[in-house]
Amino acid sequence: MALNGIVENINIDWYPDRNSQMPIYEQIVKYVCRKVSSGEWTVGMKMPSQRELAHKWGVNRSTVVTAMDELASYGIIECGYGGGTRIAGNTWSVLMSEQGADWNRYIRAGEFQANLSTIQIINKLEFDDYIRLGTGEPDPKLFPSEMMKDIMVELSGNMISLNYLEPLGLRKLREVLSVRLEKEGIYAPPSCILITSGSLQALQLISICMLKRGSTVFAEAPSYLKSLQIFQSAGMNIEGIPMDEEGIRYEAIAKHIKGFSRKDYDHMLYTIPTFQNPTGILMSEMRREELFSFCQDYRLPVIEDSAYSQIWFDRKPPLSLKARDRNGMVLYLGTLSKSLAPGLRIGWIVGPESVVQRLGDVKMQIDYGASSLSQLVAARFLETGMYDEYLTEYRVEMKKRRDNALKAMEKYMSGKAEWRQPEGGFYIWTTLKGNVSTDQLFRKALSQNILLNPGNIYDFASNKALRISYAYEDPENFEKGIKTVSELI
Amino acid sequence: MALNGIVENINIDWYPDRNSQMPIYEQIVKYVCRKVSSGEWTVGMKMPSQRELAHKWGVNRSTVVTAMDELASYGIIECGYGGGTRIAGNTWSVLMSEQGADWNRYIRAGEFQANLSTIQIINKLEFDDYIRLGTGEPDPKLFPSEMMKDIMVELSGNMISLNYLEPLGLRKLREVLSVRLEKEGIYAPPSCILITSGSLQALQLISICMLKRGSTVFAEAPSYLKSLQIFQSAGMNIEGIPMDEEGIRYEAIAKHIKGFSRKDYDHMLYTIPTFQNPTGILMSEMRREELFSFCQDYRLPVIEDSAYSQIWFDRKPPLSLKARDRNGMVLYLGTLSKSLAPGLRIGWIVGPESVVQRLGDVKMQIDYGASSLSQLVAARFLETGMYDEYLTEYRVEMKKRRDNALKAMEKYMSGKAEWRQPEGGFYIWTTLKGNVSTDQLFRKALSQNILLNPGNIYDFASNKALRISYAYEDPENFEKGIKTVSELI
Repeated sequence: MALNGIVENINIDWYPDRNSQMPIYEQIVKYVCRKVSSGEWTVGMKMPSQRELAHKWGVNRSTVVTAMDELASYGIIECGYGGGTRIAGNTWSVLMSEQGADWNRYIRAGEFQANLSTIQIINKLEFDDYIRLGTGEPDPKLFPSEMMKDIMVELSGNMISLNYLEPLGLRKLREVLSVRLEKEGIYAPPSCILITSGSLQALQLISICMLKRGSTVFAEAPSYLKSLQIFQSAGMNIEGIPMDEEGIRYEAIAKHIKGFSRKDYDHMLYTIPTFQNPTGILMSEMRREELFSFCQDYRLPVIEDSAYSQIWFDRKPPLSLKARDRNGMVLYLGTLSKSLAPGLRIGWIVGPESVVQRLGDVKMQIDYGASSLSQLVAARFLETGMYDEYLTEYRVEMKKRRDNALKAMEKYMSGKAEWRQPEGGFYIWTTLKGNVSTDQLFRKALSQNILLNPGNIYDFASNKALRISYAYEDPENFEKGIKTVSELI
Repeated sequence: MALNGIVENINIDWYPDRNSQMPIYEQIVKYVCRKVSSGEWTVGMKMPSQRELAHKWGVNRSTVVTAMDELASYGIIECGYGGGTRIAGNTWSVLMSEQGADWNRYIRAGEFQANLSTIQIINKLEFDDYIRLGTGEPDPKLFPSEMMKDIMVELSGNMISLNYLEPLGLRKLREVLSVRLEKEGIYAPPSCILITSGSLQALQLISICMLKRGSTVFAEAPSYLKSLQIFQSAGMNIEGIPMDEEGIRYEAIAKHIKGFSRKDYDHMLYTIPTFQNPTGILMSEMRREELFSFCQDYRLPVIEDSAYSQIWFDRKPPLSLKARDRNGMVLYLGTLSKSLAPGLRIGWIVGPESVVQRLGDVKMQIDYGASSLSQLVAARFLETGMYDEYLTEYRVEMKKRRDNALKAMEKYMSGKAEWRQPEGGFYIWTTLKGNVSTDQLFRKALSQNILLNPGNIYDFASNKALRISYAYEDPENFEKGIKTVSELI
């Protein structure tokens, strides 16, 4: 990915087909048009000289000239810049203005907002060779590949078909989830569980099914939700509610709700009580009780995101809000993405049957269910006990990484930042001291092949924070990365 | 699923815990509350008598009476209907009105429309034991389980991690698709291909990213698109355009477009040129050429759905619209759902890079990509050549089924209906003669354990048609089903 303005030279690995009935100059025109119209070659890129091309293709230079003239007449190339030929336009900017669809206008027409540009960059660079200090994914090296192998081999013998599943998802998976949830104090028969393609899809379903335009979703400030455009794209407002060490300071919601008519049904609370993303804060038992009563008093429905709740270190976190819920006020989101394998894309929503049915109905309309294969694999991980076995090891490893990360932070970041020690999850919320711009730091770190997640992505006001994650990089890389960041500061 | 008004008796397979510190009557109250609040027991269901319960649980009848009194005081049950006890309300209708969220209001608040009720019924019953005469899925028995086994075993040895993939999807899969598309005359480098969770998700992405509220999507009448609420839920209109034996009669679009300002960019065409769903019509070469010029003249962007294009019987269909496209006017949708395995949930969008990037960015926000596991399996099917091998057999089998289906239709439906002989795909579009209500027929067929897809689901005006599919049921079941339908008519 080119982040700077350096001119790229075009490499040509194509040859005209001498056996074709199409004249060679026409083949060349077609070839260049394709490259440009597909977007592979973009405006400003430099082509080899006509002489080089004639030589490479073994054709007369006049053939190349004919082709280039035609291309220039379309406005696709411009010749003569210091002997070179550059791409001058593409079919959207040139041809399309005469005869085709102007996609650029269409692209901007839809209601769904683009990702924040920082997130777009992060999404792309995550697949290059960067030290990823803020990533919300577990280290791929921790994946239980032996267990997976056993499951794949076992399933391979029974894979007699692979068709669509029921609207709520694979029955077996919902059954094993039901049993697991019961152990955590949550009563949920399979008919109250909907399998989703990760928790992100659960949020999308809620955003398009359950709230009117103009509604308000309350969320902790900062919050993972703020980094998404899902609710905003569906016409909702997100209101940040401050936190302290015990979790969300729910009483701040009251003043917002007073302005609403209770009949409008136009608000909801999104919360991550356990090892919150991005702050790592664990909501205390007392705060959970208070929050629950508050929501009940104000008839405020709750989306409880439990993505990190299995990743505790020294002691189990307090019971979920859902476990306190006797009248279906809470929609509970679970996922395997943080504790097993993001690539499975398996999550679940637990809620009143009527709500789950409605969300399931819409899920059938937007993607016809999550991958059956992923659901089969997830069900086997859960029902064989492999998942629990893995979780036990995983917690030990994550705790080690947390400890190591804190040591590295102490060593390199003391005096430069303040941070909070997490008791589980992935994140160390780190606030920089002094006059440091996190945007600048993000860019400078990029140039050192380090990918940071600036806190601004998650916050409602600008901040000077970083979401540091110890989940993705091993201790050695983590320390290397933090050392460099420290030097950059 | 209860489709009639018969009272359901509640079966109780639970016993109080005598070792619990919680009094038994309280355990009973809690148990009933849970069953009702979860939605498992619904209003009107009948509980066993108090005597029976006392006997079953081995407790004093007075204990049961105490519990039932408390439940009645909550309004959850009503006693005394001829000695029985019925569920009278649930926590949403009763408790929630005092203290919780009223989900029923929330459920109706979102913009995404519910599936048509006929489709909801079909979606649910497809997992019961019905003869499915209209289903848009291949017969699960045709799934190449041996090939799948080989792929699973092979992949199991290399499954070292299972994390998120690039925004556009697994690179390897996009590469093999790129090569396949080239063979079909479509030039698409991997950067112009986005992997989706089936074509349905491709449509959803387009609906939320590419069109303004109030825009118009043109579609063949009848059309698969009409059976979806995706575009309507995003605030667009769908306009049906008539067809003849050669495909869509595109000239009818002109009068609609004339009313629009060209600057509004508020229209798009959705078409299934090859073996259209639900009519099975194959658009002729000439119509394709004409349609393509028309769209170019009117700057009308096209969504070309190629779901059935691999399932041809006697000869390959004409080149796709996309293969004629030199300036990126067409977004091309492909899928494995109809030709290999719906449960993989793998489809793709091919289009100009700028469009594909935009859709990929939003996909990252709504579900963070399709299942990595499904993508790995799909890539192996394609790159090993197994998919092509399978397709060859699959076409032979589908042709056999088509022939058998036409014979059965001839035998049982002659004089009762008219239909069109398809040259590929899944469907025989069948129009009933005389005064038959397809809604009534749908219901009567249900009572005979036959699931039909009434043509109304797909059409813009009411019709007397059925979408008959020979893809799902084997010849024997198909004939049995058609015979019964014939008798019902």
